[in-house]
Amino acid sequence: MDGSHWLSMHPLVEKLTENGHDVVVVIPESSLTMGGSETFTVQTYPVPYTSQEITANFQKLSREHFSLPSHFPWIAIEMLDSMMVVFNMFYKSCESLLLNQELIQKLRDEKFDAVLTDPMLPCGQILAEHLSLPSVFFLRGIPCNIDAKATKCPTPLSYVPRMLTSLTDHMNFPQRVKNLFYDLTTHVMCNVLYSPYEQLAKEFLKRDVSLQEILSHAAIWLMRMDFTFEFPKPLMPNMILIGGINCAQKKLLNQDFEKLVNSSGEHGFVVFSLGSMVSEIPMDKAMDIAEAFRSIPQTVIWRYTGKVPSNLGSNTHLVKWLPQNDLLAHPKARAFITHAGSHGIYEGICNAVPMVMLPLFGDQMDNAKRIESRGAGVTLNVLDMTPEDLINALDSVINKPSYKENIQRLSALHLDRPIHPLDLAVHWVEFVMRHKGAPHLRPAAHDLNWIQYHSLDVFAFLLAVLVTTFFISFKCCTYTCRRCCGRKSRPKSKSKKE
Amino acid sequence: MDGSHWLSMHPLVEKLTENGHDVVVVIPESSLTMGGSETFTVQTYPVPYTSQEITANFQKLSREHFSLPSHFPWIAIEMLDSMMVVFNMFYKSCESLLLNQELIQKLRDEKFDAVLTDPMLPCGQILAEHLSLPSVFFLRGIPCNIDAKATKCPTPLSYVPRMLTSLTDHMNFPQRVKNLFYDLTTHVMCNVLYSPYEQLAKEFLKRDVSLQEILSHAAIWLMRMDFTFEFPKPLMPNMILIGGINCAQKKLLNQDFEKLVNSSGEHGFVVFSLGSMVSEIPMDKAMDIAEAFRSIPQTVIWRYTGKVPSNLGSNTHLVKWLPQNDLLAHPKARAFITHAGSHGIYEGICNAVPMVMLPLFGDQMDNAKRIESRGAGVTLNVLDMTPEDLINALDSVINKPSYKENIQRLSALHLDRPIHPLDLAVHWVEFVMRHKGAPHLRPAAHDLNWIQYHSLDVFAFLLAVLVTTFFISFKCCTYTCRRCCGRKSRPKSKSKKE
Repeated sequence: MDGSHWLSMHPLVEKLTENGHDVVVVIPESSLTMGGSETFTVQTYPVPYTSQEITANFQKLSREHFSLPSHFPWIAIEMLDSMMVVFNMFYKSCESLLLNQELIQKLRDEKFDAVLTDPMLPCGQILAEHLSLPSVFFLRGIPCNIDAKATKCPTPLSYVPRMLTSLTDHMNFPQRVKNLFYDLTTHVMCNVLYSPYEQLAKEFLKRDVSLQEILSHAAIWLMRMDFTFEFPKPLMPNMILIGGINCAQKKLLNQDFEKLVNSSGEHGFVVFSLGSMVSEIPMDKAMDIAEAFRSIPQTVIWRYTGKVPSNLGSNTHLVKWLPQNDLLAHPKARAFITHAGSHGIYEGICNAVPMVMLPLFGDQMDNAKRIESRGAGVTLNVLDMTPEDLINALDSVINKPSYKENIQRLSALHLDRPIHPLDLAVHWVEFVMRHKGAPHLRPAAHDLNWIQYHSLDVFAFLLAVLVTTFFISFKCCTYTCRRCCGRKSRPKSKSKKE
Repeated sequence: MDGSHWLSMHPLVEKLTENGHDVVVVIPESSLTMGGSETFTVQTYPVPYTSQEITANFQKLSREHFSLPSHFPWIAIEMLDSMMVVFNMFYKSCESLLLNQELIQKLRDEKFDAVLTDPMLPCGQILAEHLSLPSVFFLRGIPCNIDAKATKCPTPLSYVPRMLTSLTDHMNFPQRVKNLFYDLTTHVMCNVLYSPYEQLAKEFLKRDVSLQEILSHAAIWLMRMDFTFEFPKPLMPNMILIGGINCAQKKLLNQDFEKLVNSSGEHGFVVFSLGSMVSEIPMDKAMDIAEAFRSIPQTVIWRYTGKVPSNLGSNTHLVKWLPQNDLLAHPKARAFITHAGSHGIYEGICNAVPMVMLPLFGDQMDNAKRIESRGAGVTLNVLDMTPEDLINALDSVINKPSYKENIQRLSALHLDRPIHPLDLAVHWVEFVMRHKGAPHLRPAAHDLNWIQYHSLDVFAFLLAVLVTTFFISFKCCTYTCRRCCGRKSRPKSKSKKE
């Protein structure tokens, strides 16, 4: 997986290399964020598109998010439409990999110990199946609850909110109806998105397989999940929680940023970034935001590569890139304005900086809802927010003590762990390499069909037994009653005759 | 909890003391295995029975297991009956603690940070509720799936075998029916066992509470569970797996044992113990066992305090106590004959010694089934086994390579962990002390009733909507059809008239 997914996985790959493993990263020749490295080997393969095309598609996707309809199901339809373009490109990449016989043979000859892959795209797992290698998944989640289905992890609809619903774990009746409705709708959506992969897998592996079955063969699921952020829900034994794996050790700021930060005075500074995928926004929106920043006493460091808004205040500094984690770790950081990508949210939690969240797409609305429900941030709709909304939100998270207290509490809970998530991830990758998988963690649920899993056959049998017992008892009773009544009445009739 | 439960918890208490915590262990004046210590403070309270009585009751219980009926439901009824005696004694202990106002006040004045307790008996949790302290549970499990109910952990009947069933996670249809049947039966059993505690809690806490509700308030459940031994099943975020916590570091054997072990020659030795609760067995059984041991080439070290069987072979050495873990860790250990208590099983796994299992009561049949299903041991019914059965079982586990290979594989998987279970347990106790609980791990499922949890209201609503829609559509169709047919037929009749 390209984009932020690769950026999340990258530290784990680096760490594995550091531990002395030979890591070969298989990537398409054209990509967004994936590239060469001095530490690990990169194996590229040709794809029928250029890096310019992929960048242009992603930029289009991010631009489109500023003109999305604001309500379901239109938002889902529009998003599905935009995602299809990107998904199709990923599909072409997968096809190019799997049909590249020379490369596949080369990979087979390497005799790897394991495959590490992000199952958001099932390409890596199809390859692992083909090479008969155990696999480790690295993920935040797969849309439409596919991860839960593939691991047989129970996720009751009554308190486990589905993706894109912006619901919390405490739902009233209409919200629980909505949750079920989204569950069904996204199930259809994912059938559309993933069916080409299923077809490709069938052709490539030369057997009839479902996507769920392929994914279910993963030995370990490294989930970027932590319950200071996620709502508590059931887990399976092969799910290892590594939420916060991307919070790096604080490094020193370079001279420019150090100067900027030190000049911010007693009011401190605000960090603003919409993530690696969105660095430009429409000018009217940029001007609204600049307008808001002019009126706050804090210095603002804003990652922005677009045209400079004409109303930019002297306290606002535009930068093409910023050391996000190191800035958030600075004691003068007062607030973090973020698109609520999971990466940024975890950096906010790690460094205990309250957030103003401007979610744009994917899981970002859900992420924002989670932080908001903990009282550690404020969510704004970037499409219809006014400068006043942003000023008020910043004022709240900076000046109301509860926001800082709540994020500090979350941060303390999150960082209080027996082992760092990165070390934990490395352990489990090495575990799979050493033991050629982790079959002892695979639940027997995988060997049951739907009816058996839910014990429907057992309940039907018991119902049949109950009904039969009741029926026989009833028949016996009526028969006995008739006999008794018959005996009693006969002498009467006899006496009558007499 | 007394007996092996306390022996399991003891190392954690010691380690907490080592880490500088002030630990006060609250125990009854008369007990089986609990006693004073140089490292932690012991606070005793008077109980209406003596240590002699409790020992006698346990000895009676252990003797009775050699004359149990061998089939369900008689075995369950007999066991319930024996357990009631012991449970009643524990209940008296609990009552003596909670009604001891002076002691309760003293405990309140201590201003503890947390309560560490085994929830097999809910006394500790009732006390924790009364003192408004967060609690950490330390357990193997609670009978009748109470732990799953209290944590809201899904345990599908289709592949999670219930206690006392001796089933594995792969069940055919009759076995799944049996599993459900046991689930319902033991539910009734536990109502009998635990209802006095519920009543006591209501009186002591002066509010209407259920046992499940009280237990659900535990912050962390330290589960002595590991999937090299247990069958994989769902977990909840506040369940921390510390299976194998009792496998100690190998220590040097004392002179006597060292001599014994070294004299065993190339055939090595066999360790035999029926656990801390059973040190005597009926003479006919002891003679059968001694008879079997005479015919094997291995030296046997047998923990046994009863009358010496007259047919004891020269290769069999009776001892009143044995350093079980250190003996099993010796490279000459060839087999471990055990009652299949979880403690011993984990020592067998840690040291990779194949087992012959003679389960007697409680979870031991289930434990034996687990090891047997992994091909790492053989189970015998101690009540009806012959000397030949025991000889054959020992021959298999010692001489068939598969048993050794399987236990070595389990051992390698079990010991390959990122952190030692004891350190993990200490971390989570200290976590609860530092953060005054772990509310971020409590699932929202606790706030739902049974109907809401299973979304039955949502499904009923959707069904109602579907039926109404269908009904209205049907009515519309019939109305339209009638109108259409009416229109068509009227002109015809007109033309007839014409």
